Amino acid sequence: MVVAKVYITLKKGILDPQGKAVKGALHSMGYEGVKDVRVGKYIELTFEDGDLSLLEQKVDEMCKKILTNPIIEDYTFEIGEG
Amino acid sequence: MVVAKVYITLKKGILDPQGKAVKGALHSMGYEGVKDVRVGKYIELTFEDGDLSLLEQKVDEMCKKILTNPIIEDYTFEIGEG
Repeated sequence: MVVAKVYITLKKGILDPQGKAVKGALHSMGYEGVKDVRVGKYIELTFEDGDLSLLEQKVDEMCKKILTNPIIEDYTFEIGEG
Repeated sequence: MVVAKVYITLKKGILDPQGKAVKGALHSMGYEGVKDVRVGKYIELTFEDGDLSLLEQKVDEMCKKILTNPIIEDYTFEIGEG
């Protein structure tokens, strides 16, 4: 099996209310050292074995078409044996 | 600056309705090769420079106390220069 790990984050400059809320919670629990928090999505896609370069192309398509909102989100991914 | 990248996923066996919905959407768009989808959280924590082993301990604490629900979620993280 092959697993693609997709990391989706908000683009720089986009307001991140979740990140702000988590930062506030961390500070209120005494973790003042935290300067910034960005909250995003982590998606694991599992495939049958296949041609890695072809899968790479397909995962990129999936990211653009379905998994992310290209207007406000950036994505990276890595593909490897599951 | 130092950045901790936290990956949070549902424990094996825990129902993942989001993952199921994404899988259905991918299949309906012709990506039948996708066997499974797991959706989780990806959190980036930024710190001022500091002792990496101390930060490692603190990030682990933050994961256990605030960032994850230990009953249904697993986490891993990596720490590096930002």
